[in-house]
Amino acid sequence: MASWFSRRRPPVDLPHLKPRDAPTATTRVDLHDVMPDLLPYLGQAAYLQLEAFQTLARVVGEVDDLAAKEKIAAAAGASLSKHQGVAAEIRRRGDDPAEVMRRFADEIDGFSALTTGADWQETLLAVRVTSGLLDDFFIRLAVGLPGDVGPRIAQLLGSDGGQDGIVDVLRDAIAVDERLASRLALWGRRLVGDTLLVARSALHLSGNAVTDDERIEPIFTELIAAHTRRMDALGLTA
Amino acid sequence: MASWFSRRRPPVDLPHLKPRDAPTATTRVDLHDVMPDLLPYLGQAAYLQLEAFQTLARVVGEVDDLAAKEKIAAAAGASLSKHQGVAAEIRRRGDDPAEVMRRFADEIDGFSALTTGADWQETLLAVRVTSGLLDDFFIRLAVGLPGDVGPRIAQLLGSDGGQDGIVDVLRDAIAVDERLASRLALWGRRLVGDTLLVARSALHLSGNAVTDDERIEPIFTELIAAHTRRMDALGLTA
Repeated sequence: MASWFSRRRPPVDLPHLKPRDAPTATTRVDLHDVMPDLLPYLGQAAYLQLEAFQTLARVVGEVDDLAAKEKIAAAAGASLSKHQGVAAEIRRRGDDPAEVMRRFADEIDGFSALTTGADWQETLLAVRVTSGLLDDFFIRLAVGLPGDVGPRIAQLLGSDGGQDGIVDVLRDAIAVDERLASRLALWGRRLVGDTLLVARSALHLSGNAVTDDERIEPIFTELIAAHTRRMDALGLTA
Repeated sequence: MASWFSRRRPPVDLPHLKPRDAPTATTRVDLHDVMPDLLPYLGQAAYLQLEAFQTLARVVGEVDDLAAKEKIAAAAGASLSKHQGVAAEIRRRGDDPAEVMRRFADEIDGFSALTTGADWQETLLAVRVTSGLLDDFFIRLAVGLPGDVGPRIAQLLGSDGGQDGIVDVLRDAIAVDERLASRLALWGRRLVGDTLLVARSALHLSGNAVTDDERIEPIFTELIAAHTRRMDALGLTA
């Protein structure tokens, strides 16, 4: 499976140990050193959105309740729109989205297999957790992109279409099954490490673990703080 | 499974027996007698699009080629947009799309099971054939809808977003596998009967087979002529 599965895990500090509003301005400077090139950035972002679309669309088929189907389908549509927006940026540069995405396909398919849950509730939480973390991450990196691509990508990935619907459906599912909350909380914790490895794989790292971790840690701390707020909103302990 | 599966098959004349440009103006008059009520019309149309979306999204996951994935995903997005457009019409009337769609769910799920092919190529052709016939049919009925809903629905269902991509992908698949063409041609013929039964189930029929068939036949002849042109465009004999 993907090479980063075997890599050393990044230092994922529990966000509770730090104040959530810790100053992070200094991390913007460091980011340029680890910034991926534009095309790989776009290819990975595009394929991640396509994968989220496929996963959500599969959940639409697994859910019986028609109102839930509607909401999850809307979220799938939003992921597809993000995918198409990033693919349009690739085409605008004269490149072929399929070509640019290809080198990420195996890694992300492997990631998708890892984050497929035992039931649709787990899979739906996985999309919420992994897309939340990775969209934040790619938005964070977007400031380092050349030209005017960055603001466009940040706006595209920041549009929260359909996420409210996912939260509604998960809340409703938790409300009728109290054991589900603790199972989903556990599952959510398991997903964070694998997701941050995908994020880490996007960066240009020096190979010097100490320097790399110093650069990455502030970014990941921010990502996890936002993740914790998303879990809180579901009534789940991060 | 669905009740209309056991109904007598409608009289599906082969289109080759009639000139394709046969005058059809008189059928517009008859249509009002068999016209479904607005909400059932919208509910059935909305669920059919949701089902097409789900099927296409499943094919996205089954296809390996990334360029094909892109094209089929775009077609899935177009079906989802049509679904959301029809659902918006239901909401505009103060009704809940999930409620209005519910009575069609079992029938259309059964239809979807019948039209799932042995491989993704067959399933993709099935979407092309069934959506082509049913979109045409619902557009045809739209003239009988009250108020200004008809033109909006006709425009929505008539927007051909993503269908070109499906045709591209099918043509490419046929080009590298010559036996596929004859298998798909057979499969396409099998789909027509089942699809016209879904169309027939939407209509208010008298139960008098002779009168009903007289009313329906001109509409179905038109639908099959358009279907034949779509099969021709794929290089397949209808």
